[in-house]
Amino acid sequence: MSKIIDGKKLKEEIIDSLKKEVKHFMIKPCLAVIQIGDDPASNTYIKAKAKACDEIGIYFKHIKFTEETKEIEVINKIIELNNDEYVHGILLQLPLPDGFNADKLINYIARNKDVDGLTDINLGKLYNNKPCLISCTPQGIMKLLEHENIDLEGKNVTIVGRSNLVGKPLIGLMLNKNATVTVCHSKTENLSKHTKNADVLVVAVGKKEFIKENMVKEDAVVIDVGINKEDNKLYGDVDFNKVKTKVKKITPVPGGVGPMTVAMLMTNVINAYQKQQKKSV
Amino acid sequence: MSKIIDGKKLKEEIIDSLKKEVKHFMIKPCLAVIQIGDDPASNTYIKAKAKACDEIGIYFKHIKFTEETKEIEVINKIIELNNDEYVHGILLQLPLPDGFNADKLINYIARNKDVDGLTDINLGKLYNNKPCLISCTPQGIMKLLEHENIDLEGKNVTIVGRSNLVGKPLIGLMLNKNATVTVCHSKTENLSKHTKNADVLVVAVGKKEFIKENMVKEDAVVIDVGINKEDNKLYGDVDFNKVKTKVKKITPVPGGVGPMTVAMLMTNVINAYQKQQKKSV
Repeated sequence: MSKIIDGKKLKEEIIDSLKKEVKHFMIKPCLAVIQIGDDPASNTYIKAKAKACDEIGIYFKHIKFTEETKEIEVINKIIELNNDEYVHGILLQLPLPDGFNADKLINYIARNKDVDGLTDINLGKLYNNKPCLISCTPQGIMKLLEHENIDLEGKNVTIVGRSNLVGKPLIGLMLNKNATVTVCHSKTENLSKHTKNADVLVVAVGKKEFIKENMVKEDAVVIDVGINKEDNKLYGDVDFNKVKTKVKKITPVPGGVGPMTVAMLMTNVINAYQKQQKKSV
Repeated sequence: MSKIIDGKKLKEEIIDSLKKEVKHFMIKPCLAVIQIGDDPASNTYIKAKAKACDEIGIYFKHIKFTEETKEIEVINKIIELNNDEYVHGILLQLPLPDGFNADKLINYIARNKDVDGLTDINLGKLYNNKPCLISCTPQGIMKLLEHENIDLEGKNVTIVGRSNLVGKPLIGLMLNKNATVTVCHSKTENLSKHTKNADVLVVAVGKKEFIKENMVKEDAVVIDVGINKEDNKLYGDVDFNKVKTKVKKITPVPGGVGPMTVAMLMTNVINAYQKQQKKSV
C-alpha cells in the first residue's frame, strides 16, 4: 500500500457501489439540503453534494432561504420535511448567517433523517455504541483507516481539536474500536508530548501547517482534516511535505479526508432510506 | 487543605444546603425509584437514597416489581410517572435481573426527569456542552475537584475505564473544563505510561487495588471510583495506603466518591423539580 492515503479513490469506489445499489430501488432516495443566505463556500459544498447525488441517483432537493427569513419559517420547513415520506435525509448547510441558532434548528431534524449526525440524540447514541446516524467527517476517517487496515485496538490515538463536527464524535468512534484516546485542544499544555505519543494522529484545528515534523513520531499514521485556503491554494493542518518523509501513512489535502465526507453523507442517505423503507413495509 | 479528600463531609454540606432550600417549596419534590427483583446490594443503595430524601424533605416513591414482571408493565409504569406532575425524578435501579433490557427501559424515562442522566439524549447534550441532567458519579467527581480548587484547564486528566455510568460522561465534563483528556481501558497497551502522565487520575475499573504506587506521578490528584468488597471490607481501585504517601491528594474508599453520588442525585432531583415548576407557571 502507498504511503499517501488516497481519499479520492476510495470515495469513487464508494459512490460507485452506492450507484449500483440504488439501481434496484423502486422509489428514489431523496436528500433535502436547507441553505440560508448565499455564502460562497456553502454554494461550492452544496454543488459537490448535488453532483454526488446526481451520480448515484439520489433526488437532490435544494431549499434556499434568504438571510431575512424568520427562524420559525425554517423550523416549519424542517417539520414539513420530517413528515414527508419521500424525503429520507435532511441537512442544514452550515455555517448559518448571524441571528440563526444552528444548534436549535439542527435538533428539529428527525433523528432518522439527520444524515449529518449532528443532533444531540444521535451523538448520545454514538457514545452509547448504539446504531445511529454518524457525523460524516469522523465516519470518513474511520472508513479510511479501516480501508488501510490500520489496527486501532489498544493503540494510542491523539485527536487535536474537539469540535462537535469532528473531534467529539471521533472520541466515541475510536473508543468503540478499543483505541486509547487522547483529546487535545487550544488549552492543552505541552501539545508535542501528546502528538509524539500518537500511533494515529488526527488533526482538526483549522490552522495551516500547524503540525510540524518534530511533533510526530516515526511510523505514525497522520490524518489531516484541515482545509485552509491561502492565495487560492488549499493547505492542511499538517506540514505535509516534511511530515510525510517521517511517518508511515498520511492523508493529503486536498484528496484525503475531504472527499470521504461527501462519500459518507451519501452512505448515510442510503442507510437512512433503507431503514425508513423497512419501517413502512 | 488535607491530602485526603473528604467526600462524606462535602456530601453533608450539600444535603444540608438542599434541606434549607426545600423548606421554602410549597409542593414537595418527589423521586420515584423503580426496582425490579430483590438484589441485596440494590436494597442497600435504595435505602441510602431513601434516607437522603427523607433528610432533605423529598418524597420518596419506591416502586417494586418482581423478577417475573413483564417488561411492558415496567414501560407503562415509566410512562405513567413521566406524565405525573407530582413526580420530578425517575430512576431505574441497576443492575436489572436477566431478561430485562436496561438500556431500552432507561430511554423511556422523560429527559427532564432522568435524574441519573443515563438517557441517550442527556449524554448527547452533555457532549454538546448544553444544559442537561448529568450522571451522578461523574458529576460528583467534578464537584469534589471544584471544592478542592483543582485547576483542570490544560491539565492532563487520565480516565481509566470507559463505562456509560462513569468514564464516558466524564470525558465530556473534563473537556468542558478545558482538560486534556486520555481515556484508557482493558485494551490499553502500556497503561502505566498514561497513568504516570496524569495530573488528575480517575480510576473506575472495579478491580481491588489495581493502581499501584509506581503507576502514579508525584503531586497527582487521584480519584478512586472503585467499590470492591472482600471479606466484608471495602477496597478501592487504588492501593490507597501506598499511593497516598506519594500523591498530592486522594479520595478514600469508602468516604470519597461514593457519598458524592447520592449528593448529586439529590441535587439532580431538586434541579429537575425547579425546572418543572418554572415550566408549569
